[in-house]
Amino acid sequence: MTLEHSHPDVAHEMAAHQRDISVSEFFLKNRHLLGFDSPSKASLTTVKEAVDNALDACEEAGLLPEIRVEVSNAGDGVLSVSVEDNGPGIVEEQLGRIFGKLLYGSKFHKLSQSRGQQGMGIAAAGMYAQLTTGKPLHVLSRVQGESTATELFVSINTAKNRPDIQGKKRVAWDHSHGTRVEAQIEGHYPRGRHSISTYLKQTAIANLHVTIHFRGPHGEQWDHECSCTDLPPRPVNVKPHPRGVELGQLIQMLNNTESRTLLRFLEKDFSRVGRKTARRIIRQADQNLTERSYPKRIAHRQSQALYRAIQTVPISGPRTDCIAPIGEQRLAEGLHIEFDASFYTVTTRPPAVYRGNPYQIEVGLAYGQAAGTHLELDEHGHIHKATRQRLNTTPELEHRADEPAYLLRFANRVPLLFDQEGCAITKAVMQTNWRSYGLEQAKGALPHAPLVILAHMASVWVPYTSEAKEAIAPYPEIVKEIRLGLQSCGRRLAAHLHHETRVSDEFDRRTHLEKYLPHIGVALQTILALSDDERERMIASLDNILHEKRRL
Amino acid sequence: MTLEHSHPDVAHEMAAHQRDISVSEFFLKNRHLLGFDSPSKASLTTVKEAVDNALDACEEAGLLPEIRVEVSNAGDGVLSVSVEDNGPGIVEEQLGRIFGKLLYGSKFHKLSQSRGQQGMGIAAAGMYAQLTTGKPLHVLSRVQGESTATELFVSINTAKNRPDIQGKKRVAWDHSHGTRVEAQIEGHYPRGRHSISTYLKQTAIANLHVTIHFRGPHGEQWDHECSCTDLPPRPVNVKPHPRGVELGQLIQMLNNTESRTLLRFLEKDFSRVGRKTARRIIRQADQNLTERSYPKRIAHRQSQALYRAIQTVPISGPRTDCIAPIGEQRLAEGLHIEFDASFYTVTTRPPAVYRGNPYQIEVGLAYGQAAGTHLELDEHGHIHKATRQRLNTTPELEHRADEPAYLLRFANRVPLLFDQEGCAITKAVMQTNWRSYGLEQAKGALPHAPLVILAHMASVWVPYTSEAKEAIAPYPEIVKEIRLGLQSCGRRLAAHLHHETRVSDEFDRRTHLEKYLPHIGVALQTILALSDDERERMIASLDNILHEKRRL
Repeated sequence: MTLEHSHPDVAHEMAAHQRDISVSEFFLKNRHLLGFDSPSKASLTTVKEAVDNALDACEEAGLLPEIRVEVSNAGDGVLSVSVEDNGPGIVEEQLGRIFGKLLYGSKFHKLSQSRGQQGMGIAAAGMYAQLTTGKPLHVLSRVQGESTATELFVSINTAKNRPDIQGKKRVAWDHSHGTRVEAQIEGHYPRGRHSISTYLKQTAIANLHVTIHFRGPHGEQWDHECSCTDLPPRPVNVKPHPRGVELGQLIQMLNNTESRTLLRFLEKDFSRVGRKTARRIIRQADQNLTERSYPKRIAHRQSQALYRAIQTVPISGPRTDCIAPIGEQRLAEGLHIEFDASFYTVTTRPPAVYRGNPYQIEVGLAYGQAAGTHLELDEHGHIHKATRQRLNTTPELEHRADEPAYLLRFANRVPLLFDQEGCAITKAVMQTNWRSYGLEQAKGALPHAPLVILAHMASVWVPYTSEAKEAIAPYPEIVKEIRLGLQSCGRRLAAHLHHETRVSDEFDRRTHLEKYLPHIGVALQTILALSDDERERMIASLDNILHEKRRL
Repeated sequence: MTLEHSHPDVAHEMAAHQRDISVSEFFLKNRHLLGFDSPSKASLTTVKEAVDNALDACEEAGLLPEIRVEVSNAGDGVLSVSVEDNGPGIVEEQLGRIFGKLLYGSKFHKLSQSRGQQGMGIAAAGMYAQLTTGKPLHVLSRVQGESTATELFVSINTAKNRPDIQGKKRVAWDHSHGTRVEAQIEGHYPRGRHSISTYLKQTAIANLHVTIHFRGPHGEQWDHECSCTDLPPRPVNVKPHPRGVELGQLIQMLNNTESRTLLRFLEKDFSRVGRKTARRIIRQADQNLTERSYPKRIAHRQSQALYRAIQTVPISGPRTDCIAPIGEQRLAEGLHIEFDASFYTVTTRPPAVYRGNPYQIEVGLAYGQAAGTHLELDEHGHIHKATRQRLNTTPELEHRADEPAYLLRFANRVPLLFDQEGCAITKAVMQTNWRSYGLEQAKGALPHAPLVILAHMASVWVPYTSEAKEAIAPYPEIVKEIRLGLQSCGRRLAAHLHHETRVSDEFDRRTHLEKYLPHIGVALQTILALSDDERERMIASLDNILHEKRRL
């Protein structure tokens, strides 16, 4: 090997540059990973993270959520975004870390369905605010039962990933409980498919129990009252299912358990393992393991045997009370509220498991040429419940027949607006053969039809394609479950569509033929030795025949 | 608002569950974000991370890289993956953290081009090994000039994101310097487009100076000698360009600087700011700022003014010696080595800037029906330099005319094999109008042609779409630069293709006509009142005319 410009102390020189990277620095530099790539996306992401937290908090506390979202221009390209909820409030000691520290929260270590799961979103919004306008988050929170609220300004010390709190004080607030967060960000108010309004309206489709008040920067405003007053069932926090635990994780659990015997460990640290199953696992594993083996002293070889035994001994499937799907009835209601279609169908699949994580897929279709959407607002812009409220007041949700199907993607009741291409839902839709249900579809594309396709994944852990939680990672087992849901809805749609499709096929063939009429004319002229005049007459007559046939 | 099941201490109960999430735990649960979603992808990612580090280390030390990659079956679905380099070695105190801690490294805080940038990859591979087989990484490293190597086994304490080192000792090693890392992972040996072999061969295309020895688990092996012996120019580490710094970052820099005057701060902490420019910025900012203002005492309002002044005062563009493109000559050589085409063209675009980060785009095309690839291996499977070595020994790189163009994507000389759809390069290719250069292309798709498209982004900071570094985030300015490169190559291709395209268009029209001949027959029968026999004769004669014309 050649050595060039190399000197012996280069390894030490390089070592001198090695250092820790704080998680905040990392995401500051990679802020597109958290959904803050552009000013317009950043404003939507800010709203989304705050709304997710608000809804989670309300539901966890058993409170029917009512949220207020306000976006206003603060001049100089700066948007002020605020989200207020009627949740239980956040205790003072936690406020700093929740809003001013990445990777901090209550949902990551839990095994139950929630919108948030990473402990990053809202603090990331604060970091973005700080980066672009230098302004800290303004937080106000009043805990249920306390007489005043806490107000504070918080930013992140990115080098240390620590909250930096300013101006904390107790203040009066005319809400008995709740939280309000306000961010000053460099932002463009997004419009169309990726607008804040669209996001909130889609939220309402999957969350019929949520009341939303929205005020935009250009005077736009709407209020949406919940259409049902019972909360979704509260998902239970469960222990991991033994089959979902990988070898390394098992070893770690053995090391960290508080149980003093293997039997107790298996019974206590996992769900679905009773005494009988625990004993069978230990017997099957063999390797001198006994019920009384001390977990922390189990050797690598023994852990491997235990791991293998878990894969073979019969164990009941994971518990599913840790997830709360929307349910067929509410799903259908959501679609009805939003889309004025001629045909609806929904299905909630039975619970399934990927890598030990229970999840459940729901699918809905709304089909129909009745694409026009009804505005049922009164003169103040309010949608009234009395008149069967429709949310769909913006053109972006209108649907036309000559476009691909409109996808509504949800994960744990949260609408997914970005990265459609990368999403398991999109892949499942593309892999489904919609032609067999009577729709047009190019190979590997979305079907072309006046069709809305809604799909929802409810899970204790949604595998997102990025920290921005914009799309569901296309794990094969998840894509397959979605496909099964689509197929079951598709078959029902097929019956409805049978006649219309035949007509449309015929139409297509004719269109193609017409395109080639001039060429046919030239060819015939050669064969039949026609004059130019005769050729033109013949083309005209062919054209007539084709048109006549179509009228039938 | 209704209160249901709510109790006043719910906020405190929720607070009790709030806790820190270690970055290792986070990525353990989200390992697909780091490229460890499936056993086959995991094995490629492991190789990739180790090779990236090896090449970076060699180049930084001025050593011509020679790497050995070995993959073998360790039974029970376990692969043993090892990567060895002839780099400068890693000093003993750093070994644990480099291989056993996420977010630790020397490249994140630097502004110069390197393959690694996150300080996560190889430690993540170790974490995956630990999770799936329970085995720590086995590391061996000898620092240039030392008489022995250090051997150790290292895993990550994921709850604390700290290395857990076992069995460290000094051992003899028959290499004067270098590093070897071995992981035992649950893995499937990937084949085809995403194989380790493909990855290494693509690495050789963009790194003509690298020698690679590969041994696969089923006896497959090849050795590729570097085709040039000079290292790429070593990128210089630069200071940030003032225009690339956002307001929040500027405020932070003011707070953290060691400079005691504003003038000195501007001159010292930024690139491209001399005394004259610094003075102009301060004068333009006004707000009572002077050359001698103390940076740490500058108010928010003043920082804003400073920020605005930076955007308006003329400042030279960023330095570009921090990036090292491959260069047109080597790019062309790489394409020649790999593809047996009838036409080649390459272009290196001038340096550009996104968000203050200098970058440079390179594009190459290889076109030709000469799709067959030459195997120039001797009986031992070695490729010889003497016979103009070709790497393309696997069917996955063969190219056929009826398929979409084959994309070769590179970022900082590293091949990108996954997430093609999400990549800025793919988007640029799809947005380019290849029809105007004489190729077939469906709207918004890759062109269909016997074409290889290579694109490379060299930058001090590549904005990847995920931590797995599989695709370049489609920032509009980057997509545009790639498109300009593609267009310049495309125009040269167009000249070459002019004649062939006309022929191919004609062919297509005919094919369509033939499909409709039977329908034409029926229509003509009606118009001209032909007998069935006459109709068939006429179709036959039409068919003949079409075929005759094609032969011309």
